[in-house]
Amino acid sequence: MKDWKNYQDQHKERFLQELLDLLRIPSISARSENKADMVTCAEAVKASLLAAGASRAELYPTNGHPIVYGELITDPSKPTVLVYGHYDVQPPDPLELWHSGPFEPVIKDGKIYARGACDDKGQFYMHVKALEVMVQSGTLPTNVKFLIEGEEEVGSPNLANFVKENKELLKADVILISDTAMISLDTPSIDIGVRGLSYIEVEVTGPNRDLHSGVYGGAVANPITILAKIIASLHDENNHITIPGFYNDVVEATPAERNLMAEAPFDEQEFKQDLGIAEVWGEKGFTTNERTGIRPTLELNGIWGGYIGEGAKTVLPSKAFAKISCRLVPNQESNKITDLLINHLQTIAPPYVTVKASLHHGGEPYMTPIDSKEYRAAAKAIETTFGKSPIPVRGGGSIPICALFEKELGLKIIFLGFGLDSDNLHSPNEKYDLANFYKGIETIPYFHQYLSEVSNEGSN
Amino acid sequence: MKDWKNYQDQHKERFLQELLDLLRIPSISARSENKADMVTCAEAVKASLLAAGASRAELYPTNGHPIVYGELITDPSKPTVLVYGHYDVQPPDPLELWHSGPFEPVIKDGKIYARGACDDKGQFYMHVKALEVMVQSGTLPTNVKFLIEGEEEVGSPNLANFVKENKELLKADVILISDTAMISLDTPSIDIGVRGLSYIEVEVTGPNRDLHSGVYGGAVANPITILAKIIASLHDENNHITIPGFYNDVVEATPAERNLMAEAPFDEQEFKQDLGIAEVWGEKGFTTNERTGIRPTLELNGIWGGYIGEGAKTVLPSKAFAKISCRLVPNQESNKITDLLINHLQTIAPPYVTVKASLHHGGEPYMTPIDSKEYRAAAKAIETTFGKSPIPVRGGGSIPICALFEKELGLKIIFLGFGLDSDNLHSPNEKYDLANFYKGIETIPYFHQYLSEVSNEGSN
Repeated sequence: MKDWKNYQDQHKERFLQELLDLLRIPSISARSENKADMVTCAEAVKASLLAAGASRAELYPTNGHPIVYGELITDPSKPTVLVYGHYDVQPPDPLELWHSGPFEPVIKDGKIYARGACDDKGQFYMHVKALEVMVQSGTLPTNVKFLIEGEEEVGSPNLANFVKENKELLKADVILISDTAMISLDTPSIDIGVRGLSYIEVEVTGPNRDLHSGVYGGAVANPITILAKIIASLHDENNHITIPGFYNDVVEATPAERNLMAEAPFDEQEFKQDLGIAEVWGEKGFTTNERTGIRPTLELNGIWGGYIGEGAKTVLPSKAFAKISCRLVPNQESNKITDLLINHLQTIAPPYVTVKASLHHGGEPYMTPIDSKEYRAAAKAIETTFGKSPIPVRGGGSIPICALFEKELGLKIIFLGFGLDSDNLHSPNEKYDLANFYKGIETIPYFHQYLSEVSNEGSN
Repeated sequence: MKDWKNYQDQHKERFLQELLDLLRIPSISARSENKADMVTCAEAVKASLLAAGASRAELYPTNGHPIVYGELITDPSKPTVLVYGHYDVQPPDPLELWHSGPFEPVIKDGKIYARGACDDKGQFYMHVKALEVMVQSGTLPTNVKFLIEGEEEVGSPNLANFVKENKELLKADVILISDTAMISLDTPSIDIGVRGLSYIEVEVTGPNRDLHSGVYGGAVANPITILAKIIASLHDENNHITIPGFYNDVVEATPAERNLMAEAPFDEQEFKQDLGIAEVWGEKGFTTNERTGIRPTLELNGIWGGYIGEGAKTVLPSKAFAKISCRLVPNQESNKITDLLINHLQTIAPPYVTVKASLHHGGEPYMTPIDSKEYRAAAKAIETTFGKSPIPVRGGGSIPICALFEKELGLKIIFLGFGLDSDNLHSPNEKYDLANFYKGIETIPYFHQYLSEVSNEGSN
């Protein structure tokens, strides 16, 4: 199997340049102004699949941004791997904190800096290049399908319909996703779960127009003050979320699972130093890893109201806004939590203001079993290239479509992520280490090999 | 004295057009990009003073925006009126709520719509035109000085020095300011006090960079959540401000004064309907007029942090910000309250975050006696043109320089305001009623006349 390593080594510079070209396209799904860029990016993904050896690749239009589908069916009797990824990226704001342009990728200290470098262009592109490696070295032991969407960062509003309507097209044996992180190259890990999501926006309206804060201040409720009081009330003194019923469906982790989690290497001092914080924060009674792994959360993603420009303006504003998202764990349901959250906000709104709240998007939590042959193939692939067996961990992020994949396609998902928590996902200066990019391309063919081998042994 | 009314009637259309020209200059003192517009506006004010009959008018440069000074000394033995006003305006944001351009004045339903229409271009310009009226009709019984600054909306940072260094230039018998409101044309009133101000900006920093809210959410303090908790704690359940010592220096209004205030016409139903609110809000134990007139307040003027663009971004931001201002009443001191406020914010900041807070600007509260001959001249002028004696009221706004005027120049201030609370000061669609503009020009010469008369009677 050395052939693919030789091929990769010979072409690694080209692989990188191709990725950089992809990173130059500002495929921000949340922004209507980037609609044309989304199509450009989808076309580029399609071209890359065909160039890598896919026998077929095309764009499927949706009510939002197009979905790219590609495949290489070598032999229907072989196992089929469906690779899922996304070519859309998060908005790059705040721009002023980037050291280089978010869509002008630069290589510095062995890292690619660009929006989407890790999430998820750099990661799904490893699969495109791994396909090329396997095809060119004649070592592809499976069939491969690609489903690369353009709306993951906005909650995949159109993917569910596509999946439901194209079950035959997407038929496979396993879904492989590289959109998560590992602990480090020295401590490889595999995510076995992603959290669900309920993302809403809140609008608090006080007076029907902006007022002079001297003439009216003190006599009319200020929507910023009221919104602050509402937000402040959402966590109690133990940082427990106060929404009635919020924790009802949470499957508590067993002591055994918590003990296992406690064994994963974690240095709180290093964690605090890396983030520049004096103290960690979170729900009382849980460790940092538990807080992000097995517990649901409620976070403020944005807030604005009144005068936010240079200098001072003495205004009592008419409105204040917030973006709030909850991360959910098994067996919480996104719709149910969204309803609880919105109802709670409206219930606690005082009579001085009106509160409107609406869903941005949601997604269900998902966990993958670690006793499947697919998980074992992934663990063995990592052990082969990293020299160490990966630790199974529960990640804090969300991939909204996972639960639907399982339901509609009857498939398990393997999260073969090569990112790092320090990759600044969704933040300025997002990066992806070249070493991780290349390690991923090297590891993926082993997964196909081992999957093919265990599949030949019969079902588990 | 009918002469001046005739002159005004003949020239009223030109007076209006001249004001509209002044309103077209975007003299936003808070914005560095409008620095050149500030000079253009100051030059226009100077030209208008000379055109109105001032024997001298010039610009005095400062470290910020220029001060315009003008005068017409007819006879040193006559009383001298120093008119103070400001040619700078508040930023027009949020622009999307304006029905017409903030610097493209339009006349609709007898009202001038433009930023600065009432605050304060439309009001100080009444004095410019009143000067022209008196000069042209040969009826000016006093000496007149004009001090029109360009930094009132940012706290007059350079005016204090100018006043201290130019006491001789500014020597006068009374300061006359039209930068406040009356209850209505049917219920004329005169402000007898303005509140002081402490305006600060707060920056709350959590992690040293924006984080992925899934990967880190729940385990790292979110600066928006913490800022909300800080803000929420600043008012207790009775909407009393919780900063220790905040009320220490407040001179409580006497029962007699509160009884007098209660006699001023106020229709709470109308007040709520006008603002589109279901309930008024404020400090327990005080009426709406008391809350804005005799009580200090703390208002949020702006808040921002995280992602505030279109769509959704799952970020746990590094920073959150707020602009907070307190209105002060006699005998609170601006510096003292600013220190209390900043210290309090830093004291209550939890260890998960760092809180920086700094002063934007401040100003002292001011009250004018109602038993002076100057006040009586103003009251009589209003009675002459409105047919009713004005009600003395304590206004909620601030004119930061008042206390300094009294201290440095030894002069009392008369607030001869012709605005209305509904003029949308500091808000979109600021307006000034033509009727009020013309009524002001008609009333001002009577003030000069009566002042001259009572001055001839000897000191009070």
